[in-house]
This record gives sequence, structure tokens and C-alpha cells, in this order.
Amino acid sequence: MGMDIEKLLAGVKDGSISTEDAMLMLRKAPFEDIGYAKPDSHRAIRQGVAEIIYGAGKTSEQICGIMDKMRENGQETILITRLDEGKARVISEKFELKYNPEGRIGVNGPYPEPDGIGRILIATGGTSDIPVAEEAAVTARALGNEVKCVYDVGVAGLHRLLSHVDDIMNASVIIAIAGMEGALASVIGGLADCPVIAVPTSVGYGASYDGISALLSMMNSCASGVSVVNIDNGFGAGYMASMINHMNRMGNR
Amino acid sequence: MGMDIEKLLAGVKDGSISTEDAMLMLRKAPFEDIGYAKPDSHRAIRQGVAEIIYGAGKTSEQICGIMDKMRENGQETILITRLDEGKARVISEKFELKYNPEGRIGVNGPYPEPDGIGRILIATGGTSDIPVAEEAAVTARALGNEVKCVYDVGVAGLHRLLSHVDDIMNASVIIAIAGMEGALASVIGGLADCPVIAVPTSVGYGASYDGISALLSMMNSCASGVSVVNIDNGFGAGYMASMINHMNRMGNR
Amino acid sequence: MGMDIEKLLAGVKDGSISTEDAMLMLRKAPFEDIGYAKPDSHRAIRQGVAEIIYGAGKTSEQICGIMDKMRENGQETILITRLDEGKARVISEKFELKYNPEGRIGVNGPYPEPDGIGRILIATGGTSDIPVAEEAAVTARALGNEVKCVYDVGVAGLHRLLSHVDDIMNASVIIAIAGMEGALASVIGGLADCPVIAVPTSVGYGASYDGISALLSMMNSCASGVSVVNIDNGFGAGYMASMINHMNRMGNR
Amino acid sequence: MGMDIEKLLAGVKDGSISTEDAMLMLRKAPFEDIGYAKPDSHRAIRQGVAEIIYGAGKTSEQICGIMDKMRENGQETILITRLDEGKARVISEKFELKYNPEGRIGVNGPYPEPDGIGRILIATGGTSDIPVAEEAAVTARALGNEVKCVYDVGVAGLHRLLSHVDDIMNASVIIAIAGMEGALASVIGGLADCPVIAVPTSVGYGASYDGISALLSMMNSCASGVSVVNIDNGFGAGYMASMINHMNRMGNR
Amino acid sequence: MGMDIEKLLAGVKDGSISTEDAMLMLRKAPFEDIGYAKPDSHRAIRQGVAEIIYGAGKTSEQICGIMDKMRENGQETILITRLDEGKARVISEKFELKYNPEGRIGVNGPYPEPDGIGRILIATGGTSDIPVAEEAAVTARALGNEVKCVYDVGVAGLHRLLSHVDDIMNASVIIAIAGMEGALASVIGGLADCPVIAVPTSVGYGASYDGISALLSMMNSCASGVSVVNIDNGFGAGYMASMINHMNRMGNR
Amino acid sequence: MGMDIEKLLAGVKDGSISTEDAMLMLRKAPFEDIGYAKPDSHRAIRQGVAEIIYGAGKTSEQICGIMDKMRENGQETILITRLDEGKARVISEKFELKYNPEGRIGVNGPYPEPDGIGRILIATGGTSDIPVAEEAAVTARALGNEVKCVYDVGVAGLHRLLSHVDDIMNASVIIAIAGMEGALASVIGGLADCPVIAVPTSVGYGASYDGISALLSMMNSCASGVSVVNIDNGFGAGYMASMINHMNRMGNR
Amino acid sequence: MGMDIEKLLAGVKDGSISTEDAMLMLRKAPFEDIGYAKPDSHRAIRQGVAEIIYGAGKTSEQICGIMDKMRENGQETILITRLDEGKARVISEKFELKYNPEGRIGVNGPYPEPDGIGRILIATGGTSDIPVAEEAAVTARALGNEVKCVYDVGVAGLHRLLSHVDDIMNASVIIAIAGMEGALASVIGGLADCPVIAVPTSVGYGASYDGISALLSMMNSCASGVSVVNIDNGFGAGYMASMINHMNRMGNR
Amino acid sequence: MGMDIEKLLAGVKDGSISTEDAMLMLRKAPFEDIGYAKPDSHRAIRQGVAEIIYGAGKTSEQICGIMDKMRENGQETILITRLDEGKARVISEKFELKYNPEGRIGVNGPYPEPDGIGRILIATGGTSDIPVAEEAAVTARALGNEVKCVYDVGVAGLHRLLSHVDDIMNASVIIAIAGMEGALASVIGGLADCPVIAVPTSVGYGASYDGISALLSMMNSCASGVSVVNIDNGFGAGYMASMINHMNRMGNR
Repeated sequence: MGMDIEKLLAGVKDGSISTEDAMLMLRKAPFEDIGYAKPDSHRAIRQGVAEIIYGAGKTSEQICGIMDKMRENGQETILITRLDEGKARVISEKFELKYNPEGRIGVNGPYPEPDGIGRILIATGGTSDIPVAEEAAVTARALGNEVKCVYDVGVAGLHRLLSHVDDIMNASVIIAIAGMEGALASVIGGLADCPVIAVPTSVGYGASYDGISALLSMMNSCASGVSVVNIDNGFGAGYMASMINHMNRMGNR
Repeated sequence: MGMDIEKLLAGVKDGSISTEDAMLMLRKAPFEDIGYAKPDSHRAIRQGVAEIIYGAGKTSEQICGIMDKMRENGQETILITRLDEGKARVISEKFELKYNPEGRIGVNGPYPEPDGIGRILIATGGTSDIPVAEEAAVTARALGNEVKCVYDVGVAGLHRLLSHVDDIMNASVIIAIAGMEGALASVIGGLADCPVIAVPTSVGYGASYDGISALLSMMNSCASGVSVVNIDNGFGAGYMASMINHMNRMGNR
Repeated sequence: MGMDIEKLLAGVKDGSISTEDAMLMLRKAPFEDIGYAKPDSHRAIRQGVAEIIYGAGKTSEQICGIMDKMRENGQETILITRLDEGKARVISEKFELKYNPEGRIGVNGPYPEPDGIGRILIATGGTSDIPVAEEAAVTARALGNEVKCVYDVGVAGLHRLLSHVDDIMNASVIIAIAGMEGALASVIGGLADCPVIAVPTSVGYGASYDGISALLSMMNSCASGVSVVNIDNGFGAGYMASMINHMNRMGNR
Repeated sequence: MGMDIEKLLAGVKDGSISTEDAMLMLRKAPFEDIGYAKPDSHRAIRQGVAEIIYGAGKTSEQICGIMDKMRENGQETILITRLDEGKARVISEKFELKYNPEGRIGVNGPYPEPDGIGRILIATGGTSDIPVAEEAAVTARALGNEVKCVYDVGVAGLHRLLSHVDDIMNASVIIAIAGMEGALASVIGGLADCPVIAVPTSVGYGASYDGISALLSMMNSCASGVSVVNIDNGFGAGYMASMINHMNRMGNR
Repeated sequence: MGMDIEKLLAGVKDGSISTEDAMLMLRKAPFEDIGYAKPDSHRAIRQGVAEIIYGAGKTSEQICGIMDKMRENGQETILITRLDEGKARVISEKFELKYNPEGRIGVNGPYPEPDGIGRILIATGGTSDIPVAEEAAVTARALGNEVKCVYDVGVAGLHRLLSHVDDIMNASVIIAIAGMEGALASVIGGLADCPVIAVPTSVGYGASYDGISALLSMMNSCASGVSVVNIDNGFGAGYMASMINHMNRMGNR
Repeated sequence: MGMDIEKLLAGVKDGSISTEDAMLMLRKAPFEDIGYAKPDSHRAIRQGVAEIIYGAGKTSEQICGIMDKMRENGQETILITRLDEGKARVISEKFELKYNPEGRIGVNGPYPEPDGIGRILIATGGTSDIPVAEEAAVTARALGNEVKCVYDVGVAGLHRLLSHVDDIMNASVIIAIAGMEGALASVIGGLADCPVIAVPTSVGYGASYDGISALLSMMNSCASGVSVVNIDNGFGAGYMASMINHMNRMGNR
Repeated sequence: MGMDIEKLLAGVKDGSISTEDAMLMLRKAPFEDIGYAKPDSHRAIRQGVAEIIYGAGKTSEQICGIMDKMRENGQETILITRLDEGKARVISEKFELKYNPEGRIGVNGPYPEPDGIGRILIATGGTSDIPVAEEAAVTARALGNEVKCVYDVGVAGLHRLLSHVDDIMNASVIIAIAGMEGALASVIGGLADCPVIAVPTSVGYGASYDGISALLSMMNSCASGVSVVNIDNGFGAGYMASMINHMNRMGNR
Repeated sequence: MGMDIEKLLAGVKDGSISTEDAMLMLRKAPFEDIGYAKPDSHRAIRQGVAEIIYGAGKTSEQICGIMDKMRENGQETILITRLDEGKARVISEKFELKYNPEGRIGVNGPYPEPDGIGRILIATGGTSDIPVAEEAAVTARALGNEVKCVYDVGVAGLHRLLSHVDDIMNASVIIAIAGMEGALASVIGGLADCPVIAVPTSVGYGASYDGISALLSMMNSCASGVSVVNIDNGFGAGYMASMINHMNRMGNR
């Protein structure tokens, strides 16, 4: 915003912009050019990585239109979330598209070179949690992160999780994804020395109540360094993890 | 019931009881003498162990009265649950009483010799769960079981739990007690090869909602061989564990 | 784990394994060979009984693959839970399969000889609870138990339940399955002198809320010796009951 | 209302009331004299029985004032509900008062002669439910009913309930009061052939959630002929039961 | 039960039944012949009215089988609840059947002559509540009651309800059926001087939550003489109302 | 009501109506002609604007029938809510119909000239809330209001909302529609100096629970001058806003 | 905001403010002088009426300090909400204070002359709802409204409410306050032709759950023209009602 | 763990440790010396910062004992959470203690030099949220972070929040703390380009339900880059924020 207002005020000073026009511009669009807010409410972390389109509730035509404009603006990588298979097929007739059907997420353009602090580890309690994990993984990769996934390491078979202790110790951020009793976040939180993002999933039956059981478990985790995103919100977890993994960009604060 | 009815029918046959009287007796009290149901709904497991008095909602005088009658009947060990400190003091003026203030439970008479299949292990996630564990432990001991307690072995510090792997492998029944996210039951359930009784506790704050978070977690445990009793119900867990640990008494079924 | 570490240490001692290699092996796989944890988180109770495959979320090809490997390893009886009719048909083209469509559960190989302490009684409140009961029954049989089922003995028609008092008195473990008000567990718990596993079901309408009413009822049972598994979790109840019914295998603890 | 309007219209016709006045009177008080609605929203069942004062939120002075007016109007029996002990003491300095401290309910004047169809049976699951039962019992007696109470006949000790089968079979209406799992209503509903009013109570701990568990149980009762009033609402149950027990007064409908 | 036991004892006395056999018979079937409990847990009110079959979860073949047996036993009127249209069609090929598609309920045989105390009034808040009302109406008629229905008299248009004040004042029992805010029960409860059975319905949208809003409203009704049955339970309300309307049969208690 | 009663009383006075008939008419229909209550519980605000038909649960034939009668009575504008596309097609064969498929609402006849105090602003948090907004907009227009809609101005992109500050400052009533966290109502409530009607929507996933999250948020809004209608209730919001925007008609109170 | 920016830009133009300073001022305080937002988030409706202080969580000293400053600024009437009796006593030693202990609300200075469109009617279902009503009444009066209160007109005694039909018909805005089943809002909404603000209260017992039952009822009201504020939020209702009653001030929009 | 095992293996190799002893040591304490897990389940981020004692449920004597041991081990800064005022007074007699009564948190020893990436901003919606904020602030400072707090910037007075846009833009991590509708997290999440940790608080009344309203709001935040910790969990937020702010320590991953 700084530069723009500076220019505006300079214009007022040198007479090229009238006081009335300046006032109007300031009232009408005080935040319009700030640049850190995006059409889909996704905040861009930094230059050079993917732009994001939230696919749900948009037609494939609308999505293609947005993609056209983005590419015109020079955007190299575009991430489309909540994209069902039918729309993906239509879009891929016009654009190159790497589509992940489990995570219902697509990428146009190359994955950027990973430039984060370290590796993001994504762990799931069971195999049914994999779609959420895939959404998180593609998101994180498209935002410039190295990602490793370990699936089906739920706490009821502790040996499976413990065989990945090295991965846990070497991660810079961990995304722990689990349904049912959601204990995975607490156990990983106790083992790791990096931030853990917990994602409850709606996997389960009986008294799991579409994820509320896992959500409450994760909120009540007795481990420190664990925070939680919404049920099944793989994108949100990947985005948050990427933000943390790129804290190296914040050196000047 | 068998013997009584047999006598009754014999009496009818030899004329010492009239048909009308017999019919009346049968209608009035068909289950009265069965013997396997008790005044406090606690089912006696077998001869020789503790009778149980549910202390809440009874005056210390009433409790003493029941104890008098029990001792007259030759009962050696009496267990009194939900007994607050004030009543315990009054009772101990008249009866020998081992009172456990944390578990709010008292025992009159000697603990019976352990005669179960093996050892019951009682594990808690945190120190705040100890009152529930003490109630379970005293209950199980009074019912003739060897008991070992390991406290504060919650899953967020896995090394604490894993240092007790031998105890877990050697138990015949395990009682897993935890509040907050209640993950302890799943982890122990995955490590042990014996039945696990899970007890959610009302310990926690924020979104733990007086135990409902732990309760849902435990109901949704992804480990097999785990079942759940009511929130904070240490007595119920101790009773159930003792029943399982005395399955050796059921050989003739 | 014992033997392996012993061998490893011996190898270090005699120089056949270097210190560095030994250290790496210890870190990488501390729990890998323990043997008491299984791929599907089901804990094997003892040798000679069924291995278990959790069918939901696996293709019939994957299930066949696992079965092949199990049979190669000499497994005689294999239990497949949450198996829908379509997959069952595909599997039965390759393997002998006793499929129970109500319980959505299949068994390959012979049922093992019952070798438990006594008989497991499975009782349901209504006819709609039968699918859950069937899942429990097949599970218990495949794990080496004698099972008897009595259906539609809900408490609103007490005479139906009371006509089975002998079965209740003679069981070694009872599984009480009910939806709606879930009172069956309390009533049976009051009559029986053996452990009772309660299973709430999602049967009912109106304010039954997919089993939560029955779940809360059973958690609050005023009878002792009752514990609860998840809503509709017939497998879990059968597994727990079998564990208790085989406590005779735990003599050496 | 009939008579009043008739008089009014007659007055209009004979000119003693102006059209304008009549219109005003009709608008202002269309329902004022109907007589079947009472200051405390309690509907009087018929002449000769108790008037009712809802004591909560009224000072003892206010209650005395209302009682004065009622007695002036010739009311012989007055029932005061939700009356705490302190207020009861003050009132009894001025009025004769039979106060029931458990049920927190008081009666001034004689109990009317029972003139209902039969006897109302009040049954509770446990001893802690007795206060609710006492409120129901005093209410029913003050409204002209014969009442019998059987306490602590919860379903976990079925023999206790079954020893009262005669009472159940002979009642004209039954009030079933229970907390915890609330199964009493279903079991009695299955045994009796008269209407059953179920009252959930807030008795219990853990997951009983102040009566919601019992409320849901009773709503889901699989027995017919059972309906439910609010948690701990002994008065409401007594009132409803009395209404049913006096259906003999409705012959002319 | 009386006669049977009397015969049994007489048989023991005269030697025609051995003591052992008598004991066995008593244990096996103590309640089998009582007669007041029915296969579908519906309690028969008195002779001469409809038997009831709960249709859900039964095939049309099973229903026909039960009907055959009932008719053989001389039953003239049979009521089948929760009967979907397809099964009704099959059944009506074999039996005369008056089928009510809205209430999903069918009647075989003539409606009995109304012999209750008075008329049952069934009122609904809106038109969407009519299916529940129809189920109640058919049930009550088949059980021998005169029934009047007034629909769409919800409290937001009070004039509609008030135009039926005469019906309200003249009813012997009222069934008040409403979804959404469920206020109808309170308003009718305040106007009527007879028992009111309230039925919450799952009608509504937004925060009505499948009837829980109406259910809570009705439980909290500030009117006396109102009790509640389960959400959408028209049958239960009709059954309860009929029981109350036939209290004239209970004169001898 | 005034005029009718006046006529009635005059008739009584001049003998043209008998006293008995008058009484009967007064009892039977005291509120029938009042005019401010409508068949669909929608209260007409004033003459000259739309009549409303609630379309759900009515056949297109029934709707046409009601429309016929309304037009006969001289009604110019008719609003039909909750009208699905199929019925709309049938109706438009017979009547001119402006149908809004998103809001599932139709208008027959011309929109009345706006005659309210000012402009109603309708704002949504996201694009998925638009159907609810359209229902509100069509309702408000048909009731004689000028309406402006701004969509997708959720609080996570504050600049989008702030670019509409002028619209907010110039509105006479604002309808704030949002799902998920429902924060829009609070933020607008803090910016505006006119009444705000908040509408939670069922838009969202995970822990949004069909609108309950947004509903609770809006109820707890820390801004004054905000009140809430039911989840997804666009009609109710449009109706309430119109009522407030026509307070100029209430000058004589 | 207009004027200030105009001045600023003029200053930039004539050189009296440097471009840098102007930019800083614009960034730092873009909204600081807007004037329509207040320290306690209460939005002033217009000049001449009460300023509002939210008393909870402020010491009496802090409140006096704020009052001092307000009076210095020429404020004549000050409203203090959520003010307990102790603080009120301290404040009244320094300031004239009309304190309403039931509504826990105080007023310093004269009530302004009523200048709204008409009269605000405040109605409660029971006497226990009066504190909430008093808070609403004092708020509305201090904001310049004529107020009439009618208490204890709950729907279970409809005659009480109907005797106030004139008040309902003559009000410009109605506040309907009720706990328990909350039906008052629907019934009044059906009778009135002005906006109705509904306030659920936490009054009730049993399944009223601190107002949630009344809240859900009111959200689901089948009457149009009803919106809801938070449980027990008398201030919010009075504020909203005043806003609506002063729509005459909005003529220029 | 590395070094210890290396030493152990070396000991085995050179014979100073027997194979048997080594095996025992490995089984008994496989995780005991790892160092990244702490007695209070708090994970140490790195050397040189505070150790943490969880004060709740510990006596002041126990806390002093732990502090003694920590100081012996050379710990310079000790943080004690959930520490009530009474215990703080006792501890401060023995140790220097900076006690924050609002946050109920104490610090012994100097605050470490801030060495994180940037500044942590802590923002609250209202003044009642300050205790949670203080707990977060002291935690973050004791863990080596620069902290800035801005209080009472709730979204209903947007100008208050917008006057802190610079602080928001310059923070490296933000902790957003709010009760009631919890919208603060979404609004800040939309403005900031750094990770946001949201903390719901139990502040509010009516339908805020002890924080559940705020919790659901925050879980459903439509802004990316927001994750949530438990209700009122200021410590957890401060800990997580510090972890993220020290990602500069993770360069070697």
C-alpha cells in the first residue's frame, strides 16, 4: 500500500491529481491494491510458488477462465483444490494437469523447487485417512516443500509408528492425520521436537460422529506444540505447514 | 432357587404346604432367595471375598448398621465405595477401617488372598487420574486380586509408558485410566495381549467437557480387546477386571 | 525381542557385527520383530485360531493377496470383517468362503475347535439388532468359542428374556446388544454372574440419534460387571468376549 | 364464558349496555372469566380438590397472601410446590402445613378423599430418586388419589421389581422414576396394562449428563403405553397421573 | 399365571406331575403364559380390539404368516404399523386391507365400535405433521376410539386454533403434534382440561435438528397435564391416548 | 375486528340477529375475520404488496388454485417460496412467473414500487451463500423494497468488505448472510449504524455442523444491533428487513 | 471520514503537510475518527441519547472515571449495564444513579424524551423472566423510547396474553422474553403486525438446558417477522428495538 | 540416545558389560535417556531457555523440590504454569519469582535474550480475554521471544484492529485470542501473512457455552494459515508460537 499512497500524495502535491479525486480513490479502495489478499482468501506466502483456486462451487469453465488470467499474469504453478474427477477431465483438455483423484486436487505447471527449512512429514493413523493426506501433500509440494508420507501408523500398532522415529526426528514440521480416537497427534507430539499440525478426519463409525471424536481428542492433546485445523482439512494443514517451513523468509522482522 | 422350589414342591406333595399357600409364595417372591443379586446391585463373584456397600446417599449410621449385619453373617471383608472422609471417621470409631482418601473408599477386615489368574495392571495417563485409579485398585484388591499401579504414563511421553512394557506384557487384565484425549487405552490396547478395561476421567479443561472427549476417544479406539466403563467409574473397572481375572472359577460351564 | 537382541549383542561381542551397524539396527527397528502386533491392529490371542482381515477400504484383490500370504504361512482359518456382498462373491471364486450376509463377515477355512472356558451367550433386544449379533457370533466362533444366540429378548417383554434365565446363568461371557433405550445390558447385568459386554446399536428412530441414546444408557448402567464397546461394533464385542473366555491360557502370569 | 356473553348481549338488546361499551368489554376480556385457567397455569381438574401454588420465586409473604385469598374463597386444600424449608417454616407459623422436606412440597388443609378410578403406583429405580417420587406422591394425594410407593426397584436387581408384580398389575396408573439408564420405564411398561408416566431424574454421574441419558432412554422406550415428563418433574407426573385416574369424571363427553 | 400354577401344584399334589418336572417347568417358563405381553411388545388393552404387528423389518410373507395365525385364533381386527406401500400391496392380495399411505399403516378387518370414555382429538401444527397424525388416528380408531382430527392449527395463527376451542373443550384426550418450535402442546395444554399427549415431529429446517427442538420445547412445556412420546411416534401417542380413553375398563382396581 | 363486532352488536340491538346466534358467532369465530393473520402464517405488512405462498409440501395444482383465488381477490403480486424448479415450470404454463432458481422462489405479477425508508443491503460471506441471499432479495423486492446485493465479502479478505463501506453506511437495514464461522454479522454490525439481520447458513464442511457453528457465532456477536433468524432462512430475513424498512407506515402508533 | 481526508489532502497540496507525514497518518489511523464506533462496541444511534458503559469486568473506579470523561464531553444520560449492587452503591456516592437491581442496570442523568415512532411492548412468559425484561426496559427508555411492560403472559394461560391484544396491536416493536419452551415469541409473532425481537432466557429446569430449549424454539418459530438475540440478552433486545423504533431518523437514505 | 547405545555396545565389545546385562538395560529403558521428553510432557525446544513446571495438582513443596533439582542441574530460567496465588506466595519465600496473577504463571530466573526469527504478536478480542493472553505472553517470553500485546481489538469495532495493521504486518507469528463469536482469528488470518495460532476462550454468556461457540468458529475459519489450540490454553499457544518463531534453529534438516 505504501508506494501507491506515496504516488497518490505526490500526484496531489504536483497537481496532477485533484484533491477530490484523491479523496474518492482513498475512500473507495483503501485496501484494494495491498496485494496480500487473494480472490480465494488464500494468502500468498511469497513469489514464485503456486496460486490457489478453490474448485468447489465453480464450474470447469470458470476455473479455466481464472487459470487463463493467472497464466497471462505469468503464474507458472496453479493449484486447484476440491476438484472432482469430472471437472478435472474437462480442464485437462485445455491445460496440462497433474490430477490426484484421492486428494481431489490438481496441479497445473511444474512443482517449484523445494526451498523450505526442511522436510514436512505427513503421517496417517489408517489407510482411510489417505485422501486427506494426499490433499495435504500435493498442497505442500505445490507451495515449495519437500514432503514425505508415512501411512497407516496408528497408535494401536505402536511398532509401525516407532519404525519411523527417524522420520519424526528429522522433520521440520509434521502433519498428523487421524480419525476415530485421534491419538496419533498426541503420540507424535510427544516424540517430535518440531511443530505438529493435527487434522481430525471424519473416518470411523459408531460414536465417532463424523470427526468430532477425533477433533475433541486432538484439542485436548496433552502434548505441547500441537495445534489443530478443521476436520478433513488437508489443504489447510498443508498450507499452514508450508508457512511454518518457510519461516526462513521472515528473517527481516 | 432350585433347592427352595424343590422343598416347596415337596411340601405341597406331602401336604405340609397347601396348594394355595404355595401359589402365593411362588407369585410373591419368585426371585427373592436366588442369592446372586445383592442389596446394592453388586453381584457377588464368589464366596470368601468382600461384600460391597455403596456409601453415597447413606448416613454413617446406616452404613454401620449394614456392616453389623454383614459381620453377623460371617462376612470377613467389607468394601465401602464413594465414602467421604467425614463418614469414614465416624465409621472408624466403631469398626477397623483402612480408608483411602484419594479413592474415597474404605475396607473393613483383611484383604483376601489373591486367587485370580494373574496380576491386574492399573495405568493412568496423568497424576490427576490417580483418585479413579485408587478406587479401582482398592476394589480389585478387596475382591482378591494382585494389583500393580503405574501412574502418569500418558502417551505424550511415550518413553514413560514403554519403560513399563514388561508390566503390560505380564498382566492378565489391564485398567487404562485417562482424561483429556484418552489415547492411553488405544496405545495399551495395541501393546497388550490381555483384555483392557478403559476408564475415561473428567480430568481436563477447555474442550474436554467433563470426560466426554476421553469417553468418545475410548469408544472409538482402533485397538481390539478394549471395552469401556462410565466416566470416573474406578469401582466398575476394578469389579469388571476382577471378574475377568477370576474366570478360572468358571471351569464347569 | 529377547532372542534377536541377544544374537545382536553376541554378534557385537564376537566382532561379526560392528558397533555402528548394531547401533543402526537398534535405532531403525526396535519393535519390528516383536510379533504381538498384527497388520490389521488385531492382536492375535494365541496360536491356532483365525487371523483377521479388516475388509472395509480394501479391494477384493488386496484381500485375496493377503489371504494368499497368510495361507502360505500356514494359517488355517481367516476371518474377514466388514466385507460387502460384492467382494465376497469375487473372493469366493478363488477361496472357499463361508459368507454371512447379515453380519457382512466371511470365514475361510474350518472353524477351530472351541477351547474356551465356557459358552458365550449373545442376546439382542430386537430383530433389527441381529446383523450386529451375527458379526459378533461369527467372530467369536472363528476365534475358537462355543456360541449361543438368543434374539428379540428386549426388556419391554420381560417374559421373553426370563425364559432364557438358564442360558444367562450358564454363560461364561455374555454379549448384550440393543438399540433404542439399551436397557438390555442392565437387566442382563443384574441377572448374570459373568462379565457382560454391551453393544449399543444404531437401531431406532426419533430421539435415538444413531445409537447415542443406547450408548449413554449402557455407560450409565447401574449393574456392575458391564463394559461397553462402540456402537454397532459386533466384531469388537466378539473379540473381547473371546479374550475373556480364553483366560485359561493365561495361567502362567 | 357462555353466560357472560349471553347477559351482555341481552343488555345490548334491552339498551342497558351501549353498543360501544359492549364492544370494548368483548375486546378487553374475551377469555377473562372462562374459569378453566388458573393463576399458576395449573388446570383445576374438578371441584373439591387442592388448589396449587408454585412456590419457587415467590416470597413466603406472597404465598401467605395467596393462601389467605384462597381460603376466603372456601378452598379447603392447598398444595405448594418447590417450597424450600425456610419458607415452609415461616408459612407454618401462620397456617397449618404438612411439609415434606424431601419432595420440597407442602399441603395446607386435609387430603381429599380418594375418588379416582384406582390406585396410582409410584416406583423409583434407586434411593436417590426418592425426592422426585415424594413430590409426585404428595401431589397425587392432594388431588384426591390413593397412592402406593415402592422405592429402589431398579432393573439391575430384577427380583426387587418382580416382587412387586402384584402392585404393578393392580395399579390404574404408574409413575416410573429413574435416573442413570432409565430402563425402569421400559420394564414396567412391558409388565403393566395401564398407562405409565416416566420421569427421568438428574441422578447419576459420569455420562448421565444431568438426566439427558435417562430422558433419551425413556423417549426411546420400546414399550407402548409410556409417555414422559420433564427431568425431575415429580409434580407434573403426579398431576398427569391424577388426571388419568379421574377419567371417570369425563363420562359425559 | 394364577390358573397354570394352581394346576401345576394340584398335579404335584395328586402325583400326576413329579416334583422334578414341576421344578423344571417353573424355572423354564415362569412368565410364559402370562398373556399380558405380546410378540411385538404391544400390550393388549382389553379383549375385542385390534392386535398389532410392527411392520418394519418384517417381510410381507412374515406379516402374512402372523396374520394367518391371528385370524385362526379368532382375531377380527389387525393393525400393521410402519408398513411401506410395496408390502401393503403384496399383503392386500391375500387379505382385505385398508391402507393409509400417509401414515404408512394398514388395518385388516372392521374397526371396532368406539367404546371409550369420549372422543380423542388429534391436532397438528402444520400440514407436514399430517403423516404422524394419520398414524395416530388409525391406531386409535383400530383400538376402539372415536377420533376427530384438526390439522394446520399452529400457534403462529392463533385464530385457527381458537376456532376449535369447542373441540378442545369436548375432548377426553388430546394428541398435540408439532414440529419446529413445538408450542402447540403448551397452548393446547393451557386451554384443555383433559390429558394431552405431545408428539414432536422431525418437520422443520435449519436449527430444528430433526425434532430435537420440538422435543425439548414439549418437555419444557409450562402447562400441566402434558406428557411426551418419541419424535414422530404417532402410533405410541394413539396407543397411550386409547389407554387413557379406556380407563372406564379399570373400575375394579 | 372492530367493525365486525360493531355490526354484530348493532344487529343484536335492532333485532336482526338473535342473541343466541350472536353468541354462537362470537364463540365460534372470535378471530376469524381479523385480517392480519394469513393462511400461510405470513402476516401482511400493509395493503398493496405481495401475498405469500409457502410452496414446500404443496402440489403445483394446489398452488395454482390458491393463486387463482388471490388474483380473483385483486391481488397483483404473489410470492411463492421454497418452490422447486419442476413445480415452477408447471405453474408458469398457467401464470406469468419470474422464477429465481438459486433462491427457489417465484414472483407472479409486477414488483411493487419501493416505498420503504431506504435501501436494504444484502451481504454474503461467500459465493455458496448466494442461494439464501437470492431468497432474501426476491422476498424484500416483492414486499416493496429497494435492494442491493454484495456477494463474497467474507471477513478473511477484509479489503473486499471495506470496499463496500459506503453501501454499509447508506443502508437502512442490512442482511448479513454467512456460513462457516459466521463472523460477517459481527464485523458489519460494528461498521453499520442501522439494524442488522443475521442469517447463518449451512454452508461449510468439517466442524461447521450444518450451520450450528455460524448460528452460535451470530448469537454471540459482540456487536449491538444484530439479531438472528433461522439457518438458511432467507425468506424470514427478507420479511423482517422489509418490516423494519417500512416503519414509516407506523407513524400513528 | 470525508472532511478529515479532505483537510489532509489540502494540507499536502499547500505544502503544510509533507507527503511522508500524510502517508504515515493515513496508514496509522484510517478509521480512528469515524465516530460511529464506541469504546464499548455499542453504536450510538444518534445525538442526545444515552452513552453506554458495559459494567461487567470494570471496577467502580474505572466506571466513575469513564463517567467523568463522558460528562465533561457534555453527555447528559449514561447507561451502565451488567452492574452489580455493590458497584452501584459505590458509584451512587459520587453520581446521581437510578439503579434497577433486578435488571442489574443503572442510569445517570435524565431519561431523554421519547422520540421514536411508537411504543415498545415488552412481554414475558413468566415472573422469572422479569430481570431480563427490566434490563431491556431500562435500556430502551434510556435510548429515548416509550416502553410498556406486561409480565407473566405465557402461552399456557392464553387468556392472560389475549387480554393484552390491544397492547400487541398498538406496539411499534415488541420484545418477547421467555424461557422453558419459548413459545411466546411464536404466538405474539402471529398476533402482531410489527417486528418482534425474541429473547430466550435461561429460566427453567430439567431439559431446558440453560436456555437452549427456548433458543431453538425461537429460532424455529413458524411466525414471520421474528428475530432472536442471545440468551438473557435484555440489553441487546432493548438496543435493537430502539434502533427499529427510531427508523424515522433514517429518512434521508 | 545415540551416544548411550554406542557406549553400551562398546562395553559389550570390550567385555566390560555382559551380553545379559546389556540386553536387560536395552529392554528396561529403551527411551529413558533420549532427552527430548520431559517430566511434564513439555518438549524442550533448545538449550538455554526455560524449563517448564505444570503447577496444577502439585503442592508448593513439590514445586520447590523440582525447582531445586533443576537449578542444581544449572537451569537458569524456570516457568511455572497454572500456579495459583497462594502457592506463588509460598514459593517466592524460597525462590525469586516474577508472578503474573492474571495469567496465573510465574518465572524464576532471568528472561532469556530473544533469539527467534521475529516478534510474536498477541491480540485479544476483549478485555476479559487478557488472562489467557498473559499466560501466552509470559510463556513466549520465557522461551526466548520478543512479544507485543494488543488487547480489546475485537471485530465489532474494526477501527481498533485496523489501527494495529502495522503490528500485524510485522509479526512473525500471531496469537489471536477471543471468546464469544471468535471472529478475530479469521479477520487477522485474512490480514496477516504469517502463521496465526487461534485460542478460543470461555468468555461470554448465553449461547457461548464455555467456549464451544468460539472453538467452532475458529475451526471453521475461512482464512488459511490459521490453526487452533484448546479453549483458554494460553500456554499451548505461546509454546507453539515460540516453536514456529525458532524455526531458524532447524536449518540442518
